[in-house]
Amino acid sequence: MDKPANPDHPIHEILQRRWSPRAFSSRRVEPETLRCLLEAARWAPSSNNAQPWSFLVATQDDPGEFQRLLSCLREGNIRWVKQAPVLLISVARLNFEDSRQPNRHAFHDIGLAAANLTVQATAMGLVVHQMAGFFPEKVKELYAVPADHEPVTAIALGYPGDPATLPDDLRERESAMRTREPIGAFVFSGRWGQRSPLA
Amino acid sequence: MDKPANPDHPIHEILQRRWSPRAFSSRRVEPETLRCLLEAARWAPSSNNAQPWSFLVATQDDPGEFQRLLSCLREGNIRWVKQAPVLLISVARLNFEDSRQPNRHAFHDIGLAAANLTVQATAMGLVVHQMAGFFPEKVKELYAVPADHEPVTAIALGYPGDPATLPDDLRERESAMRTREPIGAFVFSGRWGQRSPLA
Repeated sequence: MDKPANPDHPIHEILQRRWSPRAFSSRRVEPETLRCLLEAARWAPSSNNAQPWSFLVATQDDPGEFQRLLSCLREGNIRWVKQAPVLLISVARLNFEDSRQPNRHAFHDIGLAAANLTVQATAMGLVVHQMAGFFPEKVKELYAVPADHEPVTAIALGYPGDPATLPDDLRERESAMRTREPIGAFVFSGRWGQRSPLA
Repeated sequence: MDKPANPDHPIHEILQRRWSPRAFSSRRVEPETLRCLLEAARWAPSSNNAQPWSFLVATQDDPGEFQRLLSCLREGNIRWVKQAPVLLISVARLNFEDSRQPNRHAFHDIGLAAANLTVQATAMGLVVHQMAGFFPEKVKELYAVPADHEPVTAIALGYPGDPATLPDDLRERESAMRTREPIGAFVFSGRWGQRSPLA
């Protein structure tokens, strides 16, 4: 199933194809494919090149580890993520390693890395679904994440599957229309709220 | 000047070409091009589809507005950003609009949108340089940004220029080697710090 964006201005086909489905194929993601996705994240820019990202990863190849990571998700997500072949948790280092000062952009830069990973995945025919719905404290405990780090998102990825395999309510959401504010609503010039002539 | 990443595993050519130069051509960025970049940001995913991003934008077409936005940057960045044709400030809405509850992923999702913008720009032959070095409080004051919003990054963009136009120290940095930790250093399985067999 495809569900491309319907842009008002032309965008790259990878960005247009990208969406966040809940239906995954049982097809395995080869380790070398996964490495390309993580490599894409690696080359994201970051404040001071601090690279504040880490990823906890589990695949269905190791059911015990997969279950452990899955157990950190909220129930509403477990329902469908359990079919995904790969599950990640992104983790931010909150301080700069050298100065120990807070990195104001730690979460932001995890976003940059996750977007790169998503572009690479989409280019290779995979789909990615990022989630806020998990328990960061449980991740910290189960995986002994250091105190100056913080789990940011859960990320399910794999090859696209058949929405018919989803529970009824999720299957409906799978086909819901994609909506976004137009750029005129969030691009300002001169002062806040003043629509830019450029948008 | 090109300065592609040197990846250990193959990544998409857009991600490989992307880098953050300081030298910009004086070539104008057409409004329709800028709209494509903002449109790419628009279609980023976000927690609860909250789309917590806004952008303040100024171009050299309006020197007064450009100077005003430029005045919010730290001196070290003004030195080179003054040559860029387009300057943006990304702004995050910190609370969900409906519930007024804090959006833990506001900064993260600005990162997702900024990465999309950067992919689109790179695909169209432009370069993007994101910066932490600016004064968020000054932006809030000058542009009357609402209290529940926070300026996140400054973003210079345009077509690539000649490093020879940069001051000596910046010209040197322009050709410095690009470095990243290998994926084995930040991809863990089972517990924190345990290198994943997948990385």
